[in-house]
Amino acid sequence: MSASTYKQLEQEFRRLHAFRGALSLLRWDAAVMMPRGSADVRGDQLAALETEHHALLTAPRITRLLDRAQANTQGLADWQVANLREMRRQRDHAIATPVSLISRLTKAASRAEAHWLEARQQGKFELFAPHLEEVVHLVRDKAALLGQALNLPQYDALVDEFSPGITTADIDAMFKSLSRRLPSLIRESIAVQETRPLLPLSGKFPASKQRALAVEIMKAIGFPFDRGRLDESEHPFTEGVPGDIRVTTRFDPNDLFSGLLGALHETGHAMYDLGLPQDWRDQPVGRDRGMALEESQSLLIEMIICRSRSFVRYLKPLLEKHFGVSGPEWSEANLYAHLIRVRRSLIRVDADELTYPVHIMLRYELEKQMLSGELAVKDLPEAWNAGMEQRLGIRPGNALEGCLQDIHWAVGSFGYFPSYALGHVIAAQLHESLRAEVPALDEQIAHGEFGGLFGWLRTNVHGVGAKVTVHELMKAATGKPLSATSFVRYVESKYLEGATNSAAA
Amino acid sequence: MSASTYKQLEQEFRRLHAFRGALSLLRWDAAVMMPRGSADVRGDQLAALETEHHALLTAPRITRLLDRAQANTQGLADWQVANLREMRRQRDHAIATPVSLISRLTKAASRAEAHWLEARQQGKFELFAPHLEEVVHLVRDKAALLGQALNLPQYDALVDEFSPGITTADIDAMFKSLSRRLPSLIRESIAVQETRPLLPLSGKFPASKQRALAVEIMKAIGFPFDRGRLDESEHPFTEGVPGDIRVTTRFDPNDLFSGLLGALHETGHAMYDLGLPQDWRDQPVGRDRGMALEESQSLLIEMIICRSRSFVRYLKPLLEKHFGVSGPEWSEANLYAHLIRVRRSLIRVDADELTYPVHIMLRYELEKQMLSGELAVKDLPEAWNAGMEQRLGIRPGNALEGCLQDIHWAVGSFGYFPSYALGHVIAAQLHESLRAEVPALDEQIAHGEFGGLFGWLRTNVHGVGAKVTVHELMKAATGKPLSATSFVRYVESKYLEGATNSAAA
Repeated sequence: MSASTYKQLEQEFRRLHAFRGALSLLRWDAAVMMPRGSADVRGDQLAALETEHHALLTAPRITRLLDRAQANTQGLADWQVANLREMRRQRDHAIATPVSLISRLTKAASRAEAHWLEARQQGKFELFAPHLEEVVHLVRDKAALLGQALNLPQYDALVDEFSPGITTADIDAMFKSLSRRLPSLIRESIAVQETRPLLPLSGKFPASKQRALAVEIMKAIGFPFDRGRLDESEHPFTEGVPGDIRVTTRFDPNDLFSGLLGALHETGHAMYDLGLPQDWRDQPVGRDRGMALEESQSLLIEMIICRSRSFVRYLKPLLEKHFGVSGPEWSEANLYAHLIRVRRSLIRVDADELTYPVHIMLRYELEKQMLSGELAVKDLPEAWNAGMEQRLGIRPGNALEGCLQDIHWAVGSFGYFPSYALGHVIAAQLHESLRAEVPALDEQIAHGEFGGLFGWLRTNVHGVGAKVTVHELMKAATGKPLSATSFVRYVESKYLEGATNSAAA
Repeated sequence: MSASTYKQLEQEFRRLHAFRGALSLLRWDAAVMMPRGSADVRGDQLAALETEHHALLTAPRITRLLDRAQANTQGLADWQVANLREMRRQRDHAIATPVSLISRLTKAASRAEAHWLEARQQGKFELFAPHLEEVVHLVRDKAALLGQALNLPQYDALVDEFSPGITTADIDAMFKSLSRRLPSLIRESIAVQETRPLLPLSGKFPASKQRALAVEIMKAIGFPFDRGRLDESEHPFTEGVPGDIRVTTRFDPNDLFSGLLGALHETGHAMYDLGLPQDWRDQPVGRDRGMALEESQSLLIEMIICRSRSFVRYLKPLLEKHFGVSGPEWSEANLYAHLIRVRRSLIRVDADELTYPVHIMLRYELEKQMLSGELAVKDLPEAWNAGMEQRLGIRPGNALEGCLQDIHWAVGSFGYFPSYALGHVIAAQLHESLRAEVPALDEQIAHGEFGGLFGWLRTNVHGVGAKVTVHELMKAATGKPLSATSFVRYVESKYLEGATNSAAA
């Protein structure tokens, strides 16, 4: 009885999975292939499929089947019970947010995004403010509904959508640890780096050659080009489903690293998705465990693996081969110095490992204040500028360098920003265990071998899917609860490496 | 009351239109962009969306609304009444074919297609035969259900799906006229052409240059690249919706014309779709009037316009510009001779205007015999070869040159082939009126001006959408009922042009 009820649910969610895959392809196409003038057509298609997906997920039949299946789970395997829990989770989130609210939010976000673009072009926050205000109102409504349904504080309910099981308490604890150490570490690292020479990496690096290099490294990492693509788009992203995964990046002919690291960041996401449990691929329990863990996988590759001395040993001959470069500026030491350069800067997406969390902390504080009503939207620019000055000691000269730089709030993504910092902290903690359990790791990477890395990640992270919470996963993978301790250890050892020697030199 | 019921129906069909657009994009991507290994994933997505589309279209609500709206159409405009009729038509076709049958047919077709490919590779029809047999059985079931529901003979019901309002009687009348004239005309044309010199057009024509030429001509024709794309694929096709239309072709570096004419054929389809009535774009009455009319638009461009002396005058300097060619073989006369070369050949897609309908007549006869059971699938190869020998005087040396050359039957497209021949006949009849009403047509085309051509087509064909039947459309556009008379006149004057002069020379 229960088994057949369960099977029916699997069938329903298989169909929902196919819908999500189709939606993802429509979004990928919109960003990579679609003719410029066709956005209206695509908008209608996305809305129709999203509405139908919501209707199928919230149909009374799903609730009835879930009630029946969860009332008696005898005879079901662990994975099946976890799958029921994740089905319920998806259904609860969808039921809590009526399609009318979602649709109003989608439309307000679409207007806000257009005005955000215009405000950026004209450098005038006022053009964006009323639209952001509308979005904030609607997100507040959504948070209230979600919070009530999920029995969570409102901001936590928003975070829970992106990163299930992560709470404000987790975020606050992490930021407290980071705030205690990062400001001084940033100062010390900059001081250390200033004592060392840095030769510029000038030259022209054609997109086609950058692409060939990125493809070679992605292949070495294990990205399956028979079930995936690399394309170019305005901003790097990953779409698709395991089985047809699509990453993008953007190649700047004047910058050797930004396109490559963008591609490798996205490859980190793709490898996570590809490593999800094969048997549960089209079921809720087979999905990734939220955006904090997603970002941990992309940042582990981009920031920790690819900005390491071992990776530079692998990279150097590849640069020589693809670009024919030579000379002292292409030494391992100089390349590594470029990759780990620390700078106080105003733009989040250009920030380094040490200053990046500071950018996130500011956004976290401001978005909570806007939602609670403590901060009026019109006062955002000043609050932002003051916050940057206080936290990093630099002040934006205009809104473009300030509160107009990110798209997230315009499109209603409140509660998302903490995922980036959490992801980095998770990545460092995983990496610490990984190095302990795969002692040859650094040596392997220096030779372009990534089997040890991904073998460990498959077992401990990717293959777990959404079977357990992030907290349980971290405990099982690292033996320790989630905390910023490993991250602090990691950045200290990386950015203060040889500090006294160097100061003495 | 009726107005609001009608509005609700428009809303429902707007959603169905968005689904069809999404499905079209998924198919385009599968043929142009999708990684090779991802076909299984895409198959699930297409099946899920198609099933849902069918469920939405056949929902009791739609039937209730249609019954109510059609019971009292007072106060509705012509277009709205026609829209209701087309809504009903879509619904009737969908209701008549239960999703279980469609799904069995889709799966059988997918197996048959795979075995068709294998049979082609090994040159063994036996590998394909049992799967074709399964498809024939299921198509027969479908034809029976459709025929019963639509009150049509079974084969007519299949034709009606592709070309609404076209009957076996129409097709038979057309083929009778063609059979009366084509065999002798083919003989005469070949005799005439043999008396004239034909200089070979040899050289290498890189795909990138062919593409640039195709794009320049497509732009002149009016293809909107801000709402459309040209890509390459295994076989040329058009997908998408007005507002985001995507055509493909395939460039062969050894053949100057095949890729260009493929692109222009598809541009003909695209221009039809783009010219559909703007206000009815997302409604059934705003769709094309079936495949015979679709093919008339592609063949009018590819065969009648682009294989004309005027077009060659426009094309010659473009060839010089894009490929730097010169010499006597690039004269207008020699280029034109290549474009209208008549040959008895075995492969349909390589056939010229005169022999092409013969290929279609054979397929029409054989597919009717297979469906009626008169011809057993195992006897198809022999029946095919005998038919070719009798009709064109040439006999395939193997199944690849014979009954394995087309994909249509493998994928269950019975009743489709006649559209090609009908389309050509329709194109010739439209062209005759067009030339009478736009006297400067040939002169315009010689200068790369296509406004007169498409102005007339917009008014008389494209802008009519699905408001009237093909027969009504032809009567209104040309003043005459649909017949093969104009086509015969057209091919006689084109292929026997200067015949006596030339024989005398």
